Amino acid sequence: MSVGVAVLGSTGSIGCSTLQVLARQRERFHVVALTAHSNGDLLARQAGQWRPAYVGLVNGGGRESGIGNPGSGAGVDCLVEAATHPDARIVVNGIVGAAGLEATLAALRAGKRVALANKETLVMAGELVTRAAREGGGEIVPVDSEHSAVLQCLTGRRSGELARLILTASGGPFRTWTPERLASATVEEALRHPTWKMGKKITVDSATLVNKALEVIEAHFFFGVGYDQVEVVVHPQSIVHAFCEFVDGSVLAQVGFPTMELPILYALTHPERVPDAGTRRFDPVAAGSLTFEAVSPDLFPAYSLGRAAARAGGTAPAVFNAANEVAVQLFLDGSIRFGQVADIIDRVLAGGALRAGDAGTLEGVLAADAAARRLAREAACS
Amino acid sequence: MSVGVAVLGSTGSIGCSTLQVLARQRERFHVVALTAHSNGDLLARQAGQWRPAYVGLVNGGGRESGIGNPGSGAGVDCLVEAATHPDARIVVNGIVGAAGLEATLAALRAGKRVALANKETLVMAGELVTRAAREGGGEIVPVDSEHSAVLQCLTGRRSGELARLILTASGGPFRTWTPERLASATVEEALRHPTWKMGKKITVDSATLVNKALEVIEAHFFFGVGYDQVEVVVHPQSIVHAFCEFVDGSVLAQVGFPTMELPILYALTHPERVPDAGTRRFDPVAAGSLTFEAVSPDLFPAYSLGRAAARAGGTAPAVFNAANEVAVQLFLDGSIRFGQVADIIDRVLAGGALRAGDAGTLEGVLAADAAARRLAREAACS
Repeated sequence: MSVGVAVLGSTGSIGCSTLQVLARQRERFHVVALTAHSNGDLLARQAGQWRPAYVGLVNGGGRESGIGNPGSGAGVDCLVEAATHPDARIVVNGIVGAAGLEATLAALRAGKRVALANKETLVMAGELVTRAAREGGGEIVPVDSEHSAVLQCLTGRRSGELARLILTASGGPFRTWTPERLASATVEEALRHPTWKMGKKITVDSATLVNKALEVIEAHFFFGVGYDQVEVVVHPQSIVHAFCEFVDGSVLAQVGFPTMELPILYALTHPERVPDAGTRRFDPVAAGSLTFEAVSPDLFPAYSLGRAAARAGGTAPAVFNAANEVAVQLFLDGSIRFGQVADIIDRVLAGGALRAGDAGTLEGVLAADAAARRLAREAACS
Repeated sequence: MSVGVAVLGSTGSIGCSTLQVLARQRERFHVVALTAHSNGDLLARQAGQWRPAYVGLVNGGGRESGIGNPGSGAGVDCLVEAATHPDARIVVNGIVGAAGLEATLAALRAGKRVALANKETLVMAGELVTRAAREGGGEIVPVDSEHSAVLQCLTGRRSGELARLILTASGGPFRTWTPERLASATVEEALRHPTWKMGKKITVDSATLVNKALEVIEAHFFFGVGYDQVEVVVHPQSIVHAFCEFVDGSVLAQVGFPTMELPILYALTHPERVPDAGTRRFDPVAAGSLTFEAVSPDLFPAYSLGRAAARAGGTAPAVFNAANEVAVQLFLDGSIRFGQVADIIDRVLAGGALRAGDAGTLEGVLAADAAARRLAREAACS
């Protein structure tokens, strides 16, 4: 029987890749709901192609009604409506940033599988999200390539056999730069990712390695591992996506040419695999030489701040995430220099007051998030 | 409850590694039987240390009785006696060459798990071995690092999900030589393996890449895959032991610093893993640059002959294996040049008469094996 899928953020990078995967897997899946933030034109085309039961546009500037589907929604509420649609068994959450949290919680409480590309959700509110899954009978599966790699290595293994994770980082475009030069890198330079084609925010996060700090926190909540069990290694070729070391010392890895379509497909079919020939077949000879380097703390100070926030726990990861979101947006707007992203995060976290918050309630998390955003904007102006 | 283990070939490379693993896992396993070919001194020391119920020396030159254990055996019969010992639940078969076949068949018929380092067994008589396992309720698990890697990647996955295997080959010491220079490589040069420390026969097989042809055949019988689903890639660093591609295009790999202890341990504990800190912890940064190359048919003609024998089926793999065993022994004895190993195999296979034999009976296999050895010796003299 065909499985219904809701795609949140369908006009973004993850959303478009999801629809490409679904187009090859029409016998197994159908689209129940699509939502977009503001790209009404593309959303309308997608709706015309997929004929979903529900279409939602968060910020359509008054043309929401133009989508023309009978079940249409607008405003932020449409995310929860799509995520809890009764015909959707799987929700692909490809929304960028904190905006995706409530939809994730609602879907999990409704017992759905959430295929989570929205890593901020787990970073902000890992406790809440895992509790919602437990209580509602829902399930979160990763869409990130690194966490999908881990899940694939762990599938079929007993819990307790995992000893250590090593997530790989491409190192972004600035891996070989000096800290001095890096401080004033341009937006254009930061968006020139060497191996992955992704949205702007995550591409900047890859350049600062904040993305990898977020993934360490994500791994903690996805796989229940302590932070001292999650390491990161720079791997410029992005062929090995993660290593999993087991208690006997053996290590499995998931490898392949960079594509988000494989993690998306696996998130839909886990724990099974289904035939799919849509991605480039792996060829180790064509992959070239694979190299691995330690992360340089001098080059990636924001990464170190993220790991410190992770260890601090409570609302510290949410504060780290919020400060980063504000700083990245300011950088993309041309308001601050690249080096200031880490400075702003540092100053917001250094206050300390926000870190001790209660991460066990949505109010506590959202309050910490809002306060951190305010502080980050102040830090940028001072 | 502690599991009883019989170790066939306990004084060889695999046998010694097995005892090292067992020494760290004394709570889970105990040694029930030990057999050696001719190294009575070491066998006696091992017997003194492990106090097994049964000790067997195949060729002790009259000093078999000196082992001093109550349950002692001598001659080739001791292999089957050890392999079917009632207290042994697992038989580690580390015997080099065809001599290990009958013990493997007997153990499988007695319903035991055979941890198979003896790849010749499967190559000669894959049909017989898999049938014996089916009929006797026994189970064969690989000890080879490449096949252990595959088994580890497949554990917990559904059958039918595997699409393609890529076994890695170090390429041996001659990977960068010219075919001309290679023709007269010395024994000392052939035994200088770049990454693995192993017995002499398998080290020469690695230099000719015959070892990898044998492993392709082994993979066919272990995992039920067709020969067009098993590829080989040269990987000089021996860090990635095998790649498994699944039907969805995703690829898992098992990686680690070269050691036989991990595959041995996994063969004992599969499908579970147990804590073990005896092997060098993997570190991708220390692993250095990982490279992959296609196999050169000009440099490794014996490898191509092995693949052709595999495709021919019947007794052709047994003939290939027997011709190779004779040729390698002649090379190690200084009787032939390195380049003649492939020539001899070629001439034995080219006759064709031996290839069409019935591989479904032990008599058929042993007759093909004996005839191939005779032909190989004749080919070496002419």
